[in-house]
Amino acid sequence: MNADKVQVFDTTLRDGEQVPGCKLNTHQKVLIAQRLDELGVDVIEAGFPISSPGDFASVQAIARIVKNATVCGLSRAVKSDIEAAARALEHAVKPRIHTGIGTSDSHIKYKFNSTREGVVERAVEAVSFAKTFVDDVEFYAEDAGRTDNEFLAYICSEAIKAGATVLNIPDTTGYCLPEAYGAKIKYLKENVQGIEKAILSCHCHNDLGLATANSIAGVMNGARQIECTINGVGERAGNTSLEEIVMVLRQHPYLNLDTNVDSKLLYSTSRMVSESMGMPVQPNKAIVGANAFAHSSGIHQDGVIKNRETYEIIDPKDVGVTESAIVLTARSGRAALAYRAKNLGYELTKLQLDDVYNEFLVFADRSKEVCDGDIHQIMENCKLNVRATA
Amino acid sequence: MNADKVQVFDTTLRDGEQVPGCKLNTHQKVLIAQRLDELGVDVIEAGFPISSPGDFASVQAIARIVKNATVCGLSRAVKSDIEAAARALEHAVKPRIHTGIGTSDSHIKYKFNSTREGVVERAVEAVSFAKTFVDDVEFYAEDAGRTDNEFLAYICSEAIKAGATVLNIPDTTGYCLPEAYGAKIKYLKENVQGIEKAILSCHCHNDLGLATANSIAGVMNGARQIECTINGVGERAGNTSLEEIVMVLRQHPYLNLDTNVDSKLLYSTSRMVSESMGMPVQPNKAIVGANAFAHSSGIHQDGVIKNRETYEIIDPKDVGVTESAIVLTARSGRAALAYRAKNLGYELTKLQLDDVYNEFLVFADRSKEVCDGDIHQIMENCKLNVRATA
Repeated sequence: MNADKVQVFDTTLRDGEQVPGCKLNTHQKVLIAQRLDELGVDVIEAGFPISSPGDFASVQAIARIVKNATVCGLSRAVKSDIEAAARALEHAVKPRIHTGIGTSDSHIKYKFNSTREGVVERAVEAVSFAKTFVDDVEFYAEDAGRTDNEFLAYICSEAIKAGATVLNIPDTTGYCLPEAYGAKIKYLKENVQGIEKAILSCHCHNDLGLATANSIAGVMNGARQIECTINGVGERAGNTSLEEIVMVLRQHPYLNLDTNVDSKLLYSTSRMVSESMGMPVQPNKAIVGANAFAHSSGIHQDGVIKNRETYEIIDPKDVGVTESAIVLTARSGRAALAYRAKNLGYELTKLQLDDVYNEFLVFADRSKEVCDGDIHQIMENCKLNVRATA
Repeated sequence: MNADKVQVFDTTLRDGEQVPGCKLNTHQKVLIAQRLDELGVDVIEAGFPISSPGDFASVQAIARIVKNATVCGLSRAVKSDIEAAARALEHAVKPRIHTGIGTSDSHIKYKFNSTREGVVERAVEAVSFAKTFVDDVEFYAEDAGRTDNEFLAYICSEAIKAGATVLNIPDTTGYCLPEAYGAKIKYLKENVQGIEKAILSCHCHNDLGLATANSIAGVMNGARQIECTINGVGERAGNTSLEEIVMVLRQHPYLNLDTNVDSKLLYSTSRMVSESMGMPVQPNKAIVGANAFAHSSGIHQDGVIKNRETYEIIDPKDVGVTESAIVLTARSGRAALAYRAKNLGYELTKLQLDDVYNEFLVFADRSKEVCDGDIHQIMENCKLNVRATA
C-alpha cells in the first residue's frame, strides 16, 4: 500500500522570518523559496504582505518564480490584509490565502474584546472574501490549542461552509502535550461538518520542546498537513522543524505516512537558511546539527565501527551528510583511536595500541578534541614505527 | 493531593561531556556539579571513571563536594569498570553505581557477539558485584528502545533480583515515538517481577526531536526518573533537555507529577554550562534560548502587550529570565512601536503614531532589528516634538 501523503507547509519565510535577527531581503527570500521548491515542500508561506512594503515585494517576487509549490500569503481577518495578499499572489501558479482569527477565550477577550459569535462572523467574512480572489483558502483558528473543542469544531464547520480548503489548528503557545493535541485533531476529524472537503493542518510551537511530537500526533490522528520551518526557526522557541517531521515519518514506515521532501537536500538547505538568517543551529540539533552524526564516546564509537546501525538509525547520506564523524576525545576508546589512526596510515597491533592509547589519554585530558596532527605527535612520542603508508 | 515526585538524573557531566568539543576540566566540572546540587537535581552522573584518569579524578572530586544529590558513576558490565566507579565514589554521601549492557538483538549480536542468555548472565554478575560496594545500583538495558519487551522485562526482573534499585530504559538511538516508548514503560511496570522494589528511569535521545515527548510519555506511564542534561547536550543530537521536562511538568499540573528543581535557576545554569563547554544554545531553543520569550511579529506583540498570557504560557521570571523582550522588526506593528517608544519617553497620539510607523517601516525593511538609537532617529526624521521625558 502506498503511504498517505502529508503535505509539508513551509513557513520559514513567514513565521521563521518574523523572528528577532532573522530578517531576510527579497533576493535572499527568493533564493530560499527556490530551494524549498526543489526540496519538494508542497506549500511555501512566503510572507505577510500587508505587514510592510518589503514583505509585499518579497511575496510578489516569490509568487512569480516558484514553479511547483503552492505559494501562500498570510492575512488577518481584515479586508485590507486579504486584498494585499491577493495582489501579492496575483502571478502565482498555485496561490493560497491564509486568513483567520484567534478562537480561544483568552484571545477573544483580551485581543479582540469580542465574543464567540463575533469571531465566527469575522472568520466567515474573511474566508468568503478571500474566496473571491483564489480557490485555495486556508483558515487558521489561532490559539486552537487552548480553544474549547466544541467551539473549535463549530467555527471550523462554518469556515468550510464559507469555502475553506484547509483548517489550520495552531498550538500557538506551544502548550499542548502530544496526547491532547492528537485528541483535538481526532475530535475535529469526527465532529467538523463537511470535513471531507478540507484537510486539517498542524501548526505547533516549540515552547516546551514538543512541537515535533505534537505534529506527529496530529497526523497520526487524521491531519494531513504540517506547518514547519527549516531548523525549527520561528517566534520565541520556534516552530516544528521540517527536517524532524520528514525523518520521523521516513523512519517509521509502519505509520504509512510520508512527504514529498527529498531528504538528501535537508542538510544543505539547513546550512543555507542558517547562513542567510545568521541564525546558528546548535551542534546537538536533531538531523541537521554539526554533531547529529558524530560519535565520541568509546562505547558508541566501538559499536558504530562494528556496525553503523548499533547507534545510528538514520544513514547520514540520506539527509545529505557525507559521513559519520568519529571524533576523538578523552571519552573515546581504543577502537576509535585505531580507526582514526588507520585512516592516517598507522596499522597498530594490539600491544602497540595499548601504548599509544595511554599516550592518547594524556593528550585527550589536556584538550577538547584530538586532531590528526595530535595523532602524528602521539605516534612520534611512542617512538612507534608503525606507519604503513606515507 | 501532593504531586508525585519525578527524580531528575542529570547526566550533563557524563553523557553531555562526552560530546565533541564539550570537554571540561575537573575544576569546571566541580563548579557545574555544585550548581546542579543547588538547582535541586536528585542524581548527578559525574562521569565514567574507568574512561580516563582525568575523568576518574573529576568523579572523585565531585563525590567529595556534593552535599544533597546522589553522585553516580558509569561503568560497563565489566569488573574493572565497576571497581573504578566504586573507588571514585568512595567519599560520596550518597553514591550510586550505574552499570549495564546492551539488550537489543542488534547490540547482542554486533557489539557483544553473544546471546540473550549471555547478556543476562553478565548483567546479573555486574549488578551483584556493584552491590558489594554500594546499596544504590542502577542497571541500564542499552538500546532498550529496540529491545523486545518480553526479554527486556525478563532481564529487568533478574537485575532487581540481583539488587538493582533503578532500571534505566534507554532509547539509545532516539528511534521511539512517544506512544511506543510510553507503552514500553507501561509493559515493564506491569510485567517486571519485583518492580515495586525499583524505579523505572527514562533515558531518551533526541535524534528525531522526540526526547522530551518520550520522557514525558514515560513518566505518564509509571517511570519516576528522567535522565537529562542542561541544554539537551549529549551524544549526537543530544539527550532530553532538563529545562524542558521540568517546565512541561510544572505547566501541566493535572499530570500530578513534579520535580525538586528550582526553576528560577534554569536560565543561569543553562548559560553557565553553555559557556563552560563552549556549546552554543540556539536562539530558538525552548525555555533557555535567547528568543524563547522574545516577541517580534505585530500580531504577537500586540497580544502580549494587552495580556502576557495571550502568547506566553510561562512567565519568564519563573525560569530566571528578567522580562519578555519586545523586539522591533519589519514584522512589528504599531502597538509594539508605541510600547518601545513609550519606554524611551515618547508619548504618541494615534495620528503621530501613523506617521512614525511609516518611517519605522523604512528603517525596519533595511535592517534586522530596530534599536533604541534608531527610534530616536525616526522621531527626529518625523520632526515630532513628542518627547515627554528626557
